[in-house]
Amino acid sequence: MVWPKKISERLNIKYPLIQAPMFGVSSPEMAFAAARANCLGSLALADLSADQSVALIRETKKLTDKDFAVNIFVHTIPEMTDALKEKFVKTKHWIEKLAQKNNIEVSLPNLENIKVNSYHEQIDAIIQENCRIVSFTFGNLDDKSIQKLKAENIILIGTCTSVGEALLLESSGIDIICVQGIEAGGHRGTFDADDIPQIGGLSLLSQVYDCVKVPLIYAGGMYNASTLLAAKNLGAQGFQIGSVLLTSQESSLQAFEKERLKKVNEKDIILTKSFSGRYARGISNKYIQMMENSEYILPYPYQNKLTQELRRISKTLNNIDFVSIWVGQSIYHYSELSTEEILKKLIAEVESVE
Amino acid sequence: MVWPKKISERLNIKYPLIQAPMFGVSSPEMAFAAARANCLGSLALADLSADQSVALIRETKKLTDKDFAVNIFVHTIPEMTDALKEKFVKTKHWIEKLAQKNNIEVSLPNLENIKVNSYHEQIDAIIQENCRIVSFTFGNLDDKSIQKLKAENIILIGTCTSVGEALLLESSGIDIICVQGIEAGGHRGTFDADDIPQIGGLSLLSQVYDCVKVPLIYAGGMYNASTLLAAKNLGAQGFQIGSVLLTSQESSLQAFEKERLKKVNEKDIILTKSFSGRYARGISNKYIQMMENSEYILPYPYQNKLTQELRRISKTLNNIDFVSIWVGQSIYHYSELSTEEILKKLIAEVESVE
Repeated sequence: MVWPKKISERLNIKYPLIQAPMFGVSSPEMAFAAARANCLGSLALADLSADQSVALIRETKKLTDKDFAVNIFVHTIPEMTDALKEKFVKTKHWIEKLAQKNNIEVSLPNLENIKVNSYHEQIDAIIQENCRIVSFTFGNLDDKSIQKLKAENIILIGTCTSVGEALLLESSGIDIICVQGIEAGGHRGTFDADDIPQIGGLSLLSQVYDCVKVPLIYAGGMYNASTLLAAKNLGAQGFQIGSVLLTSQESSLQAFEKERLKKVNEKDIILTKSFSGRYARGISNKYIQMMENSEYILPYPYQNKLTQELRRISKTLNNIDFVSIWVGQSIYHYSELSTEEILKKLIAEVESVE
Repeated sequence: MVWPKKISERLNIKYPLIQAPMFGVSSPEMAFAAARANCLGSLALADLSADQSVALIRETKKLTDKDFAVNIFVHTIPEMTDALKEKFVKTKHWIEKLAQKNNIEVSLPNLENIKVNSYHEQIDAIIQENCRIVSFTFGNLDDKSIQKLKAENIILIGTCTSVGEALLLESSGIDIICVQGIEAGGHRGTFDADDIPQIGGLSLLSQVYDCVKVPLIYAGGMYNASTLLAAKNLGAQGFQIGSVLLTSQESSLQAFEKERLKKVNEKDIILTKSFSGRYARGISNKYIQMMENSEYILPYPYQNKLTQELRRISKTLNNIDFVSIWVGQSIYHYSELSTEEILKKLIAEVESVE
């Protein structure tokens, strides 16, 4: 297969493969390894504070002088109403009891101890740290942020899960669109957290390509030469690689989580709001089954902040039933090689296809 | 693009395109038109009685001496318990009231007037009418039926929506598998009506191809050369064409339904159980919005039989809010040409791609 050129030329990489930003999984080391494979590394900043974002950016810059994308969550923060405060207290209590019943001692934060960050501070930090590529999800950047970033010649990559979202991104002047098919693991990038389109990559990518002019990256189900070739035929100029790297040496997942991934069955993989308040695709477990249709799911980012400590403690306990393991719909032989080797093998496989 | 050969050789067609069986939309004329385009026509028999099936098969055979596939629903019929009887009465009453409020006078059938057909009688009729190709959905044929059909050298095409279903079909000796991606319109072919996997075509087709050896047809989102080429790259040897033919001259849809299709937006397209008791993808309307999260959905085929008369009357009234219009996730310029012309144009487009 001949590699498409638009994205790789724009991003100054040899191969148009993008290591997916996977908060809690990807790391500065993973971004560095992707760069060594002549692909684009991504640093997942999610909704960290500006200071935390700066620390991670500096850590990555110590490792590599190549460009990498920093990825942020551009969600709107829901208004804290009395009803939401009340729901928070009930949810906290319910989850603490659920944890206790399952022998996990955890004290979840009170609302007043939760710090919700706006992405605007991250943008200032990103500019100050001289980052060259910003990717984002959960919505579109506001006009002022776009202007600020463009004034610095920073390349902007937005995420869409529908044609409508792609059109909004393009009309805002976003440079590159990452089309996220339903196959993708982790959080859905949908603008409206509650009403997510569930369009398969085949239909979505093809239609976005029909409707917009900016170059497209495809994310979702990319795991071998055939899937990359199919995405290329549907109009992708770049390919985002996520789940394939979950068990790599640079992944921050624990050994017991990697073992779970190796045993995953297609029936285990579900879409759930129960950990963060936003839909994400991952492996079903006891926590998800108890929570999913309950009253105890707060809107993002509150659910996310509330359950963070439960997930952290469950990790230290190797408790598979209370951690979130995100993964896409393509199941294959998960590899323990390094990110660099996994990407290089995939590149070689693609190049061997006529 | 060079056409893959396995399916077309096996089915004795020039082009490996299969006109999708679409009950209530496709017709003997459509199957005939597909045959004229040197593709495979399909006659949707759904869960009709043996006599109705024979009548449609004979009607089609009068039009063409080419082979066509007959498509049947191989669902299991749920046991009629007292609880289900009670739910039936309540549902009938509720839907009648809903119709009345919306100025539709309709009398839905009582349970004793509903005739539920088993597919086993259809199989005897199909053999007797000398059909050569049987495709099926909603499950797998039982072993005895498979033996009967194989004894007549009839080619069997099963439908899968997961890798697990594909493996079951293959191990039963089914000759060809139609892989139905989440993009597809109409009913999900899933074996278990209540627990449907929602795997995007890109991940599903690729993984089924990795796991089974029988040739694969892909269904879902096929509307232009790129989508067919992508499916070919993922392992498809045949391509099922459904939504593209919805507004064709041979479609049984009414003019007002075709007009609705031409205005469809991606946000209108949803998955619903409300018409038949099984999940199907189509255009949202008032009926679906009222029903979807209600208590008033019976298991298939009871919901389907119950709502049939409501849909029939709504069609005569041009009432878009109470008819079911099934459509997949790919939206494009719907054409009013004949099925033959639409297929020939698609073939020409595919052949012009290098």
